[in-house]
Amino acid sequence: MKIIVSGIGGRMGKAICELASTGFRGAQIVAGCDLIPLESPDFPIYPSPLSQPIEADCIIDFSHHTGTTALLNYAVSASLPVVLATTGHTDEEYEAIKEAAKRIPVFHSANMSVGIALLVELAKTTAKAFPDANIEIIEKHHNRKLDAPSGTALLLANAIREIRQKASFVFGRHGQAKRTEEEIGIHAIRMGNIVGEHEVIVGTDTQTITLKHEAHSRALFAEGALVAADYLIGQSAGLYDMKNMLTEE
Amino acid sequence: MKIIVSGIGGRMGKAICELASTGFRGAQIVAGCDLIPLESPDFPIYPSPLSQPIEADCIIDFSHHTGTTALLNYAVSASLPVVLATTGHTDEEYEAIKEAAKRIPVFHSANMSVGIALLVELAKTTAKAFPDANIEIIEKHHNRKLDAPSGTALLLANAIREIRQKASFVFGRHGQAKRTEEEIGIHAIRMGNIVGEHEVIVGTDTQTITLKHEAHSRALFAEGALVAADYLIGQSAGLYDMKNMLTEE
Amino acid sequence: MKIIVSGIGGRMGKAICELASTGFRGAQIVAGCDLIPLESPDFPIYPSPLSQPIEADCIIDFSHHTGTTALLNYAVSASLPVVLATTGHTDEEYEAIKEAAKRIPVFHSANMSVGIALLVELAKTTAKAFPDANIEIIEKHHNRKLDAPSGTALLLANAIREIRQKASFVFGRHGQAKRTEEEIGIHAIRMGNIVGEHEVIVGTDTQTITLKHEAHSRALFAEGALVAADYLIGQSAGLYDMKNMLTEE
Amino acid sequence: MKIIVSGIGGRMGKAICELASTGFRGAQIVAGCDLIPLESPDFPIYPSPLSQPIEADCIIDFSHHTGTTALLNYAVSASLPVVLATTGHTDEEYEAIKEAAKRIPVFHSANMSVGIALLVELAKTTAKAFPDANIEIIEKHHNRKLDAPSGTALLLANAIREIRQKASFVFGRHGQAKRTEEEIGIHAIRMGNIVGEHEVIVGTDTQTITLKHEAHSRALFAEGALVAADYLIGQSAGLYDMKNMLTEE
Repeated sequence: MKIIVSGIGGRMGKAICELASTGFRGAQIVAGCDLIPLESPDFPIYPSPLSQPIEADCIIDFSHHTGTTALLNYAVSASLPVVLATTGHTDEEYEAIKEAAKRIPVFHSANMSVGIALLVELAKTTAKAFPDANIEIIEKHHNRKLDAPSGTALLLANAIREIRQKASFVFGRHGQAKRTEEEIGIHAIRMGNIVGEHEVIVGTDTQTITLKHEAHSRALFAEGALVAADYLIGQSAGLYDMKNMLTEE
Repeated sequence: MKIIVSGIGGRMGKAICELASTGFRGAQIVAGCDLIPLESPDFPIYPSPLSQPIEADCIIDFSHHTGTTALLNYAVSASLPVVLATTGHTDEEYEAIKEAAKRIPVFHSANMSVGIALLVELAKTTAKAFPDANIEIIEKHHNRKLDAPSGTALLLANAIREIRQKASFVFGRHGQAKRTEEEIGIHAIRMGNIVGEHEVIVGTDTQTITLKHEAHSRALFAEGALVAADYLIGQSAGLYDMKNMLTEE
Repeated sequence: MKIIVSGIGGRMGKAICELASTGFRGAQIVAGCDLIPLESPDFPIYPSPLSQPIEADCIIDFSHHTGTTALLNYAVSASLPVVLATTGHTDEEYEAIKEAAKRIPVFHSANMSVGIALLVELAKTTAKAFPDANIEIIEKHHNRKLDAPSGTALLLANAIREIRQKASFVFGRHGQAKRTEEEIGIHAIRMGNIVGEHEVIVGTDTQTITLKHEAHSRALFAEGALVAADYLIGQSAGLYDMKNMLTEE
Repeated sequence: MKIIVSGIGGRMGKAICELASTGFRGAQIVAGCDLIPLESPDFPIYPSPLSQPIEADCIIDFSHHTGTTALLNYAVSASLPVVLATTGHTDEEYEAIKEAAKRIPVFHSANMSVGIALLVELAKTTAKAFPDANIEIIEKHHNRKLDAPSGTALLLANAIREIRQKASFVFGRHGQAKRTEEEIGIHAIRMGNIVGEHEVIVGTDTQTITLKHEAHSRALFAEGALVAADYLIGQSAGLYDMKNMLTEE
């Protein structure tokens, strides 16, 4: 698949180029664009916003939400699917996304990690299968991380609360107090240089299910973007996200 | 829910009684039956097959496949759902199951472990979400186990092969040979008194997903039978299994 | 080895008998004693305190600290080593232990788990080898446990503080705060029917060491007592504990 | 501590510079040497072998065994401790190492990973504490690794065999065969981009001890060299290795 990368000069833009160079999903970068034009020996890089015609199968956008509207205009005019990996859209920008999605396939996810999106779905399935179980979440991150627990741990806990509506969250235990049935313990380990680990543990008296995701490198977001592009090409117009991709038959 | 337990004198029959006594899922044993009639201070135990009217919500059968046909006749005449936790049915007995399922809800599963049935589904979902990943299975059992790998590990591997049709199985690695993309390594740890652990690991260069089931006690089969009964009561006539129960919205 | 079990009627007394019946360490129970005399088809059971001569290699005491002095008198007179697995000794009783240890070998440990004693030593060795590492402790217990963290988790943390004297303990993390170098995070998971798990994690930017102990059954204390007896027989008079046993060349 | 790095142009030389720049163990690179002289803005780099006087506390050598004799001559003349992280020494070179160690402190280890050296010691201690336990080793490496099991897994297994002399090694299990008491199962997982994980599991019927080392980056060898230098400075003349460093009181 032929990919245009918007925001090619940033960290994720470079990660996509590197991954494509390994032949991942047959991806081939045919053009890039960035606010500050760069040079590349392999393909042309244009200033943003794009205006020239480019033969491609999909656009991946890792630039900035302020460029979303112009990028979508280009994509609609060129009839190209778009993977939006940016966040922080204003209401107006979000309207533009929904409008564009009437005419082209648009994939939009605040978190491009396929694994985390999958973990959320698996955790919900497991919580539903074991309504009597105790649930705990352990996350591990590097020792420079300021906030605890991680946003992803809270994302998991809130997703489980969709299934188990009385759930309350407990952040560490100290003292005399028996666990309640409904509480979800959330534990934040801080250590070394860990990129990110999330573990959901669901246990009854007779069995325990553990679901664990380990991120080894932030390049997993580049991987997720290429997987999303591969999924999006050939879809009809519409707004898609990780859940659509993961649960589709 | 009021439960009749067929095969109440066996290990699983006793385990169901014990679990019900903790209030699990509001289960109340109202009668038992067994080939050899026993005594119980709490409820009547009848010789098998059952013939007398009993007020109940569901029958759970942990006896023997040779009693299935008579048990189903009773259940149909009494309009009671049946959870069949027996195995080894003949073709004729299996026909009787299908016939009964036209008139009452029948739950039939060769393995009453909700957790293993869930693990199979989660492993398939994960294999589908990561078609480029490497997959390995580690199982752990007590040191008296004769066969390796476990039947459940093979069940998992074969389920993954439904998604990844070129998968081959490798049982241990020794010597000079690079892993192929499609192979699934299956590793059997034998140690102490472990009841049963199964771990499916799905990894790419950037992330790893680990799905793990630990059985702490064989009482998990009793738990599974009560969960199945709870699910079955109120369903319309038909044949149900763990997958129906786990994937139903 | 021929063993006399004091407190044979209690839970640990029975666990020792069961373990000995499997041939563990060649242990053979030759006599028991208890305040309330019981019957046994296999060996005589005497009322406590013991007075009659018994041919044996060691006494294991799982009764009560109030019986310690009388038991030691018997052991000294019979020149038998004693494994004391009781706790709560008064100063006077503790004096009696030290006096007896001048004449016979006495093994005394508040916790008869060889594994936990080992974990304490391994954790100290690891903390010493990685003075720059971050250290975290995760413990898991059943959902009926009242206190958090477990006494064993605190035992581990305090043992590590012998090596790392500036260490402070953090019981859960929530909010905005970077980890300090010296803090030890202690996390208490409460779930299902878990007997007891303790994990010490020691991590730098480049590597992580994880030391984990899982208790599967309280019979491990019986196992520890027989291991201690096996170690004690043949030693010269003195007071021994788990650390002596584990670190001896 | 002021460090001279021999082989500064290689991958490990660069890793040491990077680690020192973070302030690790107060290390400061004061000079480097390499066969091919490089340029550095921060300190002088000389051609190898060294001849000029340099004010330093220790030399770390990550170059090549053919340069060992000349390097040792320099170190002896300058009375500087040396950490030798090279391998493949000839008998003659090894003699030179032993001779130098009569006059200066020399640290020599084929594997500069403190964690693996520690894991070897912990595994031996654990095997000794649980002579009745079953032992299994699981190692995980990236999917490009040719040999299985890893050299480190074999190092661990052989170290355990020093304690348990009847141990045999089993590389995967398949078919009908009960585990023998003495066998050590060794399992090689191949997956994604894993740098290296080694897990030694020691289990009885009542408890399991798991010892796990995870390497996150090959920079751990640079870390080990600086830790060794920190240890070596101030020692008297002699030959030292990881075991000395780890077991010293």
